[in-house]
Amino acid sequence: MPSRAFTSDNTAGASPQLVAAVAAAAQDHALPYGADPWTDHARERLGELFEREVDLLITSTGSAANALALAAMTPPWGSVLCHRDSHINNDECGAPEFYTAGAKLVTLGGDHAKIDPDQLAAAVRRKTGDVHSVQPSALSITQATETGSLYTVEEIAALASLAHDAGLGVHLDGARFANAVAALGCTPAEMTWRAGVDILSFGATKNGAMTADAIVIFNRDLTDQLRYRHKRAGQLASKMRFHAAQFAAYLDDDLWLSNAAHANQMSAVLRDQLAGLDHVQVQGRPEANIVFCKLPAPVIDGLREDGFRFYHDRWAPGVCRFVTSFQTQPDDIDDLTDRIHAHHPTTSHLQ
Amino acid sequence: MPSRAFTSDNTAGASPQLVAAVAAAAQDHALPYGADPWTDHARERLGELFEREVDLLITSTGSAANALALAAMTPPWGSVLCHRDSHINNDECGAPEFYTAGAKLVTLGGDHAKIDPDQLAAAVRRKTGDVHSVQPSALSITQATETGSLYTVEEIAALASLAHDAGLGVHLDGARFANAVAALGCTPAEMTWRAGVDILSFGATKNGAMTADAIVIFNRDLTDQLRYRHKRAGQLASKMRFHAAQFAAYLDDDLWLSNAAHANQMSAVLRDQLAGLDHVQVQGRPEANIVFCKLPAPVIDGLREDGFRFYHDRWAPGVCRFVTSFQTQPDDIDDLTDRIHAHHPTTSHLQ
Amino acid sequence: MPSRAFTSDNTAGASPQLVAAVAAAAQDHALPYGADPWTDHARERLGELFEREVDLLITSTGSAANALALAAMTPPWGSVLCHRDSHINNDECGAPEFYTAGAKLVTLGGDHAKIDPDQLAAAVRRKTGDVHSVQPSALSITQATETGSLYTVEEIAALASLAHDAGLGVHLDGARFANAVAALGCTPAEMTWRAGVDILSFGATKNGAMTADAIVIFNRDLTDQLRYRHKRAGQLASKMRFHAAQFAAYLDDDLWLSNAAHANQMSAVLRDQLAGLDHVQVQGRPEANIVFCKLPAPVIDGLREDGFRFYHDRWAPGVCRFVTSFQTQPDDIDDLTDRIHAHHPTTSHLQ
Amino acid sequence: MPSRAFTSDNTAGASPQLVAAVAAAAQDHALPYGADPWTDHARERLGELFEREVDLLITSTGSAANALALAAMTPPWGSVLCHRDSHINNDECGAPEFYTAGAKLVTLGGDHAKIDPDQLAAAVRRKTGDVHSVQPSALSITQATETGSLYTVEEIAALASLAHDAGLGVHLDGARFANAVAALGCTPAEMTWRAGVDILSFGATKNGAMTADAIVIFNRDLTDQLRYRHKRAGQLASKMRFHAAQFAAYLDDDLWLSNAAHANQMSAVLRDQLAGLDHVQVQGRPEANIVFCKLPAPVIDGLREDGFRFYHDRWAPGVCRFVTSFQTQPDDIDDLTDRIHAHHPTTSHLQ
Repeated sequence: MPSRAFTSDNTAGASPQLVAAVAAAAQDHALPYGADPWTDHARERLGELFEREVDLLITSTGSAANALALAAMTPPWGSVLCHRDSHINNDECGAPEFYTAGAKLVTLGGDHAKIDPDQLAAAVRRKTGDVHSVQPSALSITQATETGSLYTVEEIAALASLAHDAGLGVHLDGARFANAVAALGCTPAEMTWRAGVDILSFGATKNGAMTADAIVIFNRDLTDQLRYRHKRAGQLASKMRFHAAQFAAYLDDDLWLSNAAHANQMSAVLRDQLAGLDHVQVQGRPEANIVFCKLPAPVIDGLREDGFRFYHDRWAPGVCRFVTSFQTQPDDIDDLTDRIHAHHPTTSHLQ
Repeated sequence: MPSRAFTSDNTAGASPQLVAAVAAAAQDHALPYGADPWTDHARERLGELFEREVDLLITSTGSAANALALAAMTPPWGSVLCHRDSHINNDECGAPEFYTAGAKLVTLGGDHAKIDPDQLAAAVRRKTGDVHSVQPSALSITQATETGSLYTVEEIAALASLAHDAGLGVHLDGARFANAVAALGCTPAEMTWRAGVDILSFGATKNGAMTADAIVIFNRDLTDQLRYRHKRAGQLASKMRFHAAQFAAYLDDDLWLSNAAHANQMSAVLRDQLAGLDHVQVQGRPEANIVFCKLPAPVIDGLREDGFRFYHDRWAPGVCRFVTSFQTQPDDIDDLTDRIHAHHPTTSHLQ
Repeated sequence: MPSRAFTSDNTAGASPQLVAAVAAAAQDHALPYGADPWTDHARERLGELFEREVDLLITSTGSAANALALAAMTPPWGSVLCHRDSHINNDECGAPEFYTAGAKLVTLGGDHAKIDPDQLAAAVRRKTGDVHSVQPSALSITQATETGSLYTVEEIAALASLAHDAGLGVHLDGARFANAVAALGCTPAEMTWRAGVDILSFGATKNGAMTADAIVIFNRDLTDQLRYRHKRAGQLASKMRFHAAQFAAYLDDDLWLSNAAHANQMSAVLRDQLAGLDHVQVQGRPEANIVFCKLPAPVIDGLREDGFRFYHDRWAPGVCRFVTSFQTQPDDIDDLTDRIHAHHPTTSHLQ
Repeated sequence: MPSRAFTSDNTAGASPQLVAAVAAAAQDHALPYGADPWTDHARERLGELFEREVDLLITSTGSAANALALAAMTPPWGSVLCHRDSHINNDECGAPEFYTAGAKLVTLGGDHAKIDPDQLAAAVRRKTGDVHSVQPSALSITQATETGSLYTVEEIAALASLAHDAGLGVHLDGARFANAVAALGCTPAEMTWRAGVDILSFGATKNGAMTADAIVIFNRDLTDQLRYRHKRAGQLASKMRFHAAQFAAYLDDDLWLSNAAHANQMSAVLRDQLAGLDHVQVQGRPEANIVFCKLPAPVIDGLREDGFRFYHDRWAPGVCRFVTSFQTQPDDIDDLTDRIHAHHPTTSHLQ
């Protein structure tokens, strides 16, 4: 039976390659705390991928990766400039504030959950040097965004340039980094350090891994303090190999990219099918692996009774969000659009 | 070839049962953030084990479990009373201070890394109500201790009683909880809440798991705040099922106990063999899965050249620590004692 | 020569009564850390003023008073609901975030720097119980506001009721509390605990004191933790009597009220005179001791050349803010309006 | 009637010169937040005193000065090395832990409350680079110490050198700095930056001031961050002039030094008189303004009934501490020793 889970890509399981890697890693003794061959392999593979040496700290969640990255750039009296819809602002229960020892998230607007460059330009030097105000210290960009939209490489570079010119560090929240690379067709290097990114939260969990995200550090001056922060946060797993093995398998044979390309493709298919249905208004275009559309209330009710899982009515009445993943199959899409069609009172008549 | 890894039980791999559980959990969709059947199963199994309802939060490391537990009991102006040799004091880079927002660890002495009750009695009400001083807020007991020694159930109850009478909470750092239960032959309930423990850090990683430790909450008034702290710390994994599946497998069929009993047994065997060797002074008795002994320097050098891994010369010249695990085999022990024997200059002459 | 300082009421000196009180307190020995007669006297006088027993902690700044008050109500994973123009949000370099160990300030809008009740109603239960989000924990109201506007007692009670119904604490930032009481003609009790305020930051520095503000605690369950926070913050002065003597003198003979009434009266006079001038647009009405008006650019330039000090062009082009204090004299007002008149090119012609 | 207050130098009042300075500062308008002539004057006067340019931040308490200074040198994962009897370790309710966001105070021993150089040498590089441990980051020396003993300039330089060689910053807690300079006869420069001190907490409150201590920064790279920390801590008084005027008067005409010399002299007189009494054992020598002696229990009881205030029986049975201050008069000393004599059962017989 097809899967009816479209809530988020974090409801999917894990890729078989990762399962095999974890099973292999379980066999024998290895040095603890990241001094193991899997961690070395992941770091080397990242070096190839990003076309330069990088430093790597693996975390068990994306929240920890984001919060650590921001803490490395932002003193307690600093501020993080981010979109008002960003995950770090809304969905991490203040993890950045905790890890930075009380910095402030200063939120910016912009269409499609993307930071408006003019708003950023106005914010990066706001009250610089004025002790009465928190000091702009870091820019955090989410790519792909919370709505599945994408910044172009040029847009990232422009935002990063505004930030760097004012002395801020640049963080990229890449919980869906793979989906973005797959969608844009650029290289990982182009989207990150070549565009001015200092630290990347390289998400894997949403795209086939189990419990492994990574902090990829391009500005290696930040590495030393991050090693202590990482340990102190309870993120330095003694059997780090089990996180690292996931990451190694995720990077090998470009699984990260093929998984993401598949998820994106499923969203594209879904969108095409939805566009062919009466009474369905597709919203935006599915740049990554998220599709928004507007459905009549009876259709939403019907789908929920069928067991479909998805967010709806959170953004505007009738607006639904469907997220596809590496595990989504064409049958799952067909099943979904069949049922949307079936629940349509008027279109049913026409058949 | 036998394993020569005796540094710590965290260099071992993982039990096949956990690998199978993780593989099974990877197949299908599941709700994120702990709303999955594996987490439910682990909680229920813990309820049976502890003979009462408990609350459960799973973490990726024991450091996170300890620091969260202590933060739930200790305000920023509080102090945690602990042994000066405790892991939380020496080996977590200030994680308790981070999670508590700056509380103080007040260290106590006592033989064999066990807190001296008289020292605790003198400390629990030190400067209570005096705003110039941090306020005693939590007692943290490690069982089994960092040296492998054990508190009796009565000793834990006596310490906990001193703490509770003065209004402190009681935390048990059970990184090697299973080894302690296996060695003492008591029930998990007797060693914890029946003895006055409010929160247990239930370690699994060192005893067959990969990346899963747990906060088991007996004083359920502390649960609500811990849920927010856990999320905010970046410990609420979106695919929590992969931690939970480890824990569920660890608890099923009492794998936790049989793994620990095996590790303890290997230490007992090692001690018996060492006791029969000239020039080896066994120190203490192996109550759990750690053996200390004193070896001549040339023997230490020889073992290291052989590829054996173990700590030595950290406590006193010539003192070595060997840790056994669920993975240690009788052959590994024989190999170790054979080589000790072989490196002995005088005994070699005799052969 | 008249004073031309209208930047803020914190540029004024101190009332002679406070100077005399400090001089008297300097003579002899007294117990340290607030166990002195001046502190007792201030507490008792506050009890009379507020018609009930209160607890008192004196601080050296209003920022410390605000941050401590908020920390007593807001856990690290909590949020403080406040107006987006509030001092705690904009002008304290993150002091609330520091003292709360990383809570979040969630800002609300509303005309005249007053919180809109509908926005508050929508915010007080936002994501309650959802561990992914910070939890609404405290409401902070500023009275008089940063623009000199006032909440009525009924408005404060309505906001406080919304907050309390949702389980939040209520803080009143009263840096200009005296000006508000003087302007509204209500009693201190009516504006605070009878309206639902749990803790008041009772400002004195802006209204005749030197370096003394106070935390007045109505919800006395919060006192015990505040005593430790206050010490730990470096706010428990060893010679507390010198802060307390200021506060005692400030309260005796209702100096606090007469000073504020005078400052308010000077603003009313200023407004009346400005209203009589061509080319000057008075904005709002001076409810407390702040007057906003719009002046032509050449007039602003002329005033600055004359040595007048005031904020301008921060809210909108040409908008100026004049703040009067207990020290402002009628001559100062006449001088100001004379010079505004003199700098007016066209009106000069007409004369 | 003579004063019988010998508990601490913080029970004294304030010098008339400071009272006059505060009264003068109250007259007129001045720019807020330290942009006033008194603050400038204090900074310049410190420059002369220390024979070099320094940066200055004035605080309302010594605890705030200490905690801010340490926070400037110590990251959250750092440790502060200090004597186990130090004020920062025992008497500030964790202020250093609060301001540093959770650093650890690692305590050292040494006679007379002075840090033992060998213990420091063993601690400065303990586990450097090991992410499992907090990292030694700052050394805090108290001069004069909590027992009134003194480091020589050479001893300070030797400790500072050990610290600097290992990359640590050096803080001098000078709550009784003036007493130390007066006793040793060295220059302020010799005792501080020339000996390797990076930041000095320059105490004034205990020696004639009301509510003003200062952070004197020699390592001016630390100034920028301290300005934000100082504001964020609620220590940037809007009417800073009232703290600064105290400090300016304290420095003018070397009042700081003459006050301290007087207090020291009173301790010397007290010691000489005590040495002439039977049954009194003077302990150590009064290097600054603190005298320890051992008295029979009936004498202690008698003195307390007379209204004398002093600490006793905290260090060992019968051991008493008498602290003299700028306000102590020869008559106060005579009165004290007369009463000790009078309470002596055996000596009474002889009279």
